[in-house]
This record gives sequence, C-alpha cells and structure tokens, in this order.
Amino acid sequence: MQTRFDVVAIGHAIVDVLAHVDDAFLTAHGIAKGAMTLIDAFRAETLEHAMSNALEASGGSAANTAVGVASFGGRAAFIGKVRDDRLGRVFGDEIRKSGVVFESAPAKSGLATASSHILVTPDGQRSMNTFLGCASALDAGDMAEKTIAATEILYVEGYLWDTPGAKAAIRSAIAHAKAAKRQVAFTLSDPFCVGRWRDEFKSLLASDVDILFANEAEIKALFETEHFDQAFQAVRDWSGKAALTRSAHGSVVVNASHVHILEAEPVAKVEDTTGAGDQYAAGFLYGVARGLPLGNCGRLGGIAAAEVISHLGPRPLVSLKALASKAGFG
Amino acid sequence: MQTRFDVVAIGHAIVDVLAHVDDAFLTAHGIAKGAMTLIDAFRAETLEHAMSNALEASGGSAANTAVGVASFGGRAAFIGKVRDDRLGRVFGDEIRKSGVVFESAPAKSGLATASSHILVTPDGQRSMNTFLGCASALDAGDMAEKTIAATEILYVEGYLWDTPGAKAAIRSAIAHAKAAKRQVAFTLSDPFCVGRWRDEFKSLLASDVDILFANEAEIKALFETEHFDQAFQAVRDWSGKAALTRSAHGSVVVNASHVHILEAEPVAKVEDTTGAGDQYAAGFLYGVARGLPLGNCGRLGGIAAAEVISHLGPRPLVSLKALASKAGFG
Repeated sequence: MQTRFDVVAIGHAIVDVLAHVDDAFLTAHGIAKGAMTLIDAFRAETLEHAMSNALEASGGSAANTAVGVASFGGRAAFIGKVRDDRLGRVFGDEIRKSGVVFESAPAKSGLATASSHILVTPDGQRSMNTFLGCASALDAGDMAEKTIAATEILYVEGYLWDTPGAKAAIRSAIAHAKAAKRQVAFTLSDPFCVGRWRDEFKSLLASDVDILFANEAEIKALFETEHFDQAFQAVRDWSGKAALTRSAHGSVVVNASHVHILEAEPVAKVEDTTGAGDQYAAGFLYGVARGLPLGNCGRLGGIAAAEVISHLGPRPLVSLKALASKAGFG
Repeated sequence: MQTRFDVVAIGHAIVDVLAHVDDAFLTAHGIAKGAMTLIDAFRAETLEHAMSNALEASGGSAANTAVGVASFGGRAAFIGKVRDDRLGRVFGDEIRKSGVVFESAPAKSGLATASSHILVTPDGQRSMNTFLGCASALDAGDMAEKTIAATEILYVEGYLWDTPGAKAAIRSAIAHAKAAKRQVAFTLSDPFCVGRWRDEFKSLLASDVDILFANEAEIKALFETEHFDQAFQAVRDWSGKAALTRSAHGSVVVNASHVHILEAEPVAKVEDTTGAGDQYAAGFLYGVARGLPLGNCGRLGGIAAAEVISHLGPRPLVSLKALASKAGFG
C-alpha cells in the first residue's frame, strides 16, 4: 500500500518561551542546568515574570521533529493536544505553516495549552521548565488509527510517559502501527525522564521499538553506566536501529550489521542547543523512510542538528532539503 | 615457549629538544604546525639557536612506547641506532633507567645521534623538526632475531620508512616475528608520512600487520577520505585489530567482531600532546600482550595518553601501572 506520510510524530504540543540568561539566574531560581523539569502553572507564571526579552516559538520535541521531516521535503504528520486558547492557535498555525499535517482537535475545556520556559546560558546549554497543561490530556482516543496505519514510521517521544493517560494512548498507537506493519521509533527524550521510567522504556525497547534515539546522557542513564562504550555495547546487543547523539563528538549509528561513527557537522557558533536532538531525529527518520543507507541517515541527522543549534529556537530557519542537497544528497 | 618480552619496539632513537613557543615563532621559521618535518644538520643548528629555555629529553616514537610498556610493568625491549656521542649516551642511559632492554650497539662513526626540535604552542600542539642523523643508519643487521622471536609483539613505527635502509630491516624483523608466530603491530606515525608511503603502508597492512595504530588525520590520509567514518569502514573491512585515536573525542578500537567507542580520559589541563599516540600504543600493546579484552586494551591506552599530555615531555612521569591499578586494572 502506498503510504500517506513518511513520519507521524506523537508528543506534547508545547509553545516555547525562550530567553538568554546567565548561570546566576539558574542558581537563583533553583533550576537544574541542561535538564527538562516539569513545573506547575504557578511556577510557570513566576518564571515568565522573571524572564526578559523572551521569544515565543512553537516547540515540543516530537512536533519539532515533524517540522524537520517536512523541511527535508518529507511527508509529516503530528498528533498532540492543544486547547482552544491563544497559544493553542499559535501552535496549530505554526506547525501547519511548516507543512506538517496536524488534525488533532483542540480541547474546549480544561487546562491551558502547554508552555516550556527555556533558559539559554552563554555556553549554549538550555534548561527547560515545562508546564504540561492541556498537552497531558492526550489519550487513546487521540491516536488516529488511519493516519498511523498509513505512515512509514510512528515516532514517539519519551516525555509522554510523564502524562498519566499517555501510556494507554501509546500502547494503542503502537498497536495500530504494528497491525499495519509499520516501523516504531522512540526517543529517550531526557536523562531524568529515563530515570523516572527506565524499566518501562527497557521493556518497550525489547517488545516494540525498531528505531531508538538517545543522547549520551540518556543512553548511559538507561543502562546505568558511566561509560559510553558500555551503553553502546548494550545497544548493539539489542540489535535494532539506533542513533546515539554525542554533541560535539558527533553521533554513532548502528543496526544489526553496521556501525557508523560520524563527526559533528561544522557550526560557526553554537547559539542554542534547543532542538538539536529533535532535528537529528528528523534527518535520520527522513533517511530511513526514504530507504537511504544507515550512514547517510545519520549524516542527514547531523546536518539538521547543525542548522538548528546555529540560531535561537527549536526549529530550522532554512530549508533542510536545500542543506541536504548542498551536502550532496538528492 | 615462554617469551622474554611483551613488546619489542623498533624505531628511530632520538633525543628531543623541547621548547614552548608562540604561533609567530612557527610562522617566522616556516614550520608546519602539528606535523613532523625532516630537517638537515644545518637547520637543526639554526633552530637550536632560536629556541630558548629548551628541555632535553629522550624521545623517538617507538622508544617512547617501549618506555610506556615498561611503566605498565610490561617486559619491553627497544631496537634503534645511536652514535657513541653525548646524546647517544643520554638516550641509552635514560631508556635503560626506564626498565627497557636496549642492546643495539652504538655506531662508532658517521652522523651524530638524532635530535628532534619540538615546538609546543599554547594550544598544546607540537610541531616536530627532526634531524635523523645516525638513526637512519638502522639496517637488517640490527634486527636482533633472537629478541624478536622471543617477544609477544613486534612494534614498528611508520617513521622508519623515511630511512633508506629501513625497509630491508623491517622486512627482516617481520620475517623473524612471523617465523616465531608473533604478532606484528604498526603505527602510521604521521599524516605526511602516510602521504609519502601510502601504497607501501597499505600493502604492509594487507600482508603483515596484525595490530594497527593511527590517529584521525593519519587514517583519513591512508584511505584518502575527509570522513572519519569512511576510514573506519575501511579499517573494519581490513579486519585486523586497530586502535584509532581521536584526541579529545577518545578512541575507537576494533577487531573482526567487536567495536568499542571509548571516551577520552579526563585531563585537568592539556600541557603538551607530544607522545600521546606513543603512550596510547603502550597501554594498548601491554593489554594485548597480557590477553586483556579489546575494550580494556583501549582504556589502558587512554589512561597512558592522558598522563603524558598533562605535562611537558613524551614519556610518563608517574607509574602507569599505578594509574591502571587506580582505574581498577590488575
């Protein structure tokens, strides 16, 4: 059957509020550097008041990835929950303008659309403080069976495990994908997220995941080791496709028979690492959906990540398709 | 048969003359940064006059490795040529004091003992200007058959190819090792050296080498690619044991069935990268000679490299055996 989409991404629909701050700001507000911390509505308001010159931009890890796939010229869809409020409309308008099909109906009651207060320090690191709001209302009813069945790869973010109803939703989405013989991709999302859900993530890997994304901290957290190599050996034993991202050290991509050790693409100045992993996933998934060799999938990931860290904001500012073509692809 | 040595290293016997200089010094003297350049006696004298506060210390790539093996508690021997002059005595005294057996007879006539004028810039890079002198008189007659036959691993430096008589000498040494069913290890030494001898190095790999050492620039030069991953794939196709060192990115070690991706050991401050590859080779070879798993051989290499780059000079200042034991080995 001809598919309708290359990738359907499921995740939290979030609008990011970004600002440059110094390390002292993090210390003063008790914020863990480089991590994603869940906050409530009250703390979200406190942070919003403290942040000056903040930039508002649609985000959400899996949503960013869907936008990246579309920027490569891929056919992308996103499933996630917004409310019928101002931020919800911002999110919907922006993701559709990026070429991503977003058909989830906005909620008419309940909590507001999710927002993440992202603090970028001079070293390019970002610390995220996320108020999940309405995004956490995602449930099995939102898992559009027809869309999932008609898509090459179902992509699920680990962050969803922090949402009470999401487990049933994901189980349902994976069942739809498996029934249609589609591939299931999963990102570990965050080392603290791995800490909260390690055993569930491991059993998900063993039973359902075909493609895994993790950065160095996440894969070490999953296998409880301080040595990247030990985590890498565990990934090889698992034998699915995996992309392990390593910041300035590039990435390592593996499947049952191959290992590729890829250098980071050159970046003149790292401005903001927000979305680096999301865009890497976009390039890799686009490559897999189009049947490219494993090493080239990783290179597309690196190209997309390099673009997004060269400016503030979690989504590409230029066409990834054009960048890929400049690098000799397609 | 019980062996007498873990490693016998063959290379140029050189005394290093090290000094800290700025980039302007390199420019003024037309010196290629980070490379090893061969110079004649006249230029050696010119540089010596221009260098102030120079430190004299025995060096030579393979000799440094032999000293590193001994520092791990391994049984090491060195074969190389000095003259019966002051520097020749310095070289012989220092290597023997390090616990390395050095039985090559000093030449009684001809060129002086080799010296390398090493300029260390503030970024920790070193640029080497080597006057080979007497070291280039090495010939087949120096290849002590009994020593080689009684040693687990014969280790040969690529630099030797710059010495006219050395090819016959190496052929003879390898023949002794193969006849005794010993392993042959080889380092590419320097990207410019690879450029000079690419085809010969490739045929040596195909026919005689069991263990290969190369840094990123060298392995890319060998396989004429700008992508580390392409060089890595070529190394995997070759299917011997290889250790590819990547400076701050750590190292990758492979054999026919395994790949290990190792992080660099932490170093408080990189003082001088002179000898990093030599000491990495020492740790790796010691591990192989003692039958350690491949990944652990690489970790020992990383531990030794981290020690030597933390201070000026190409040989360890503290016991590598003690450092290995602190890291949980032996």
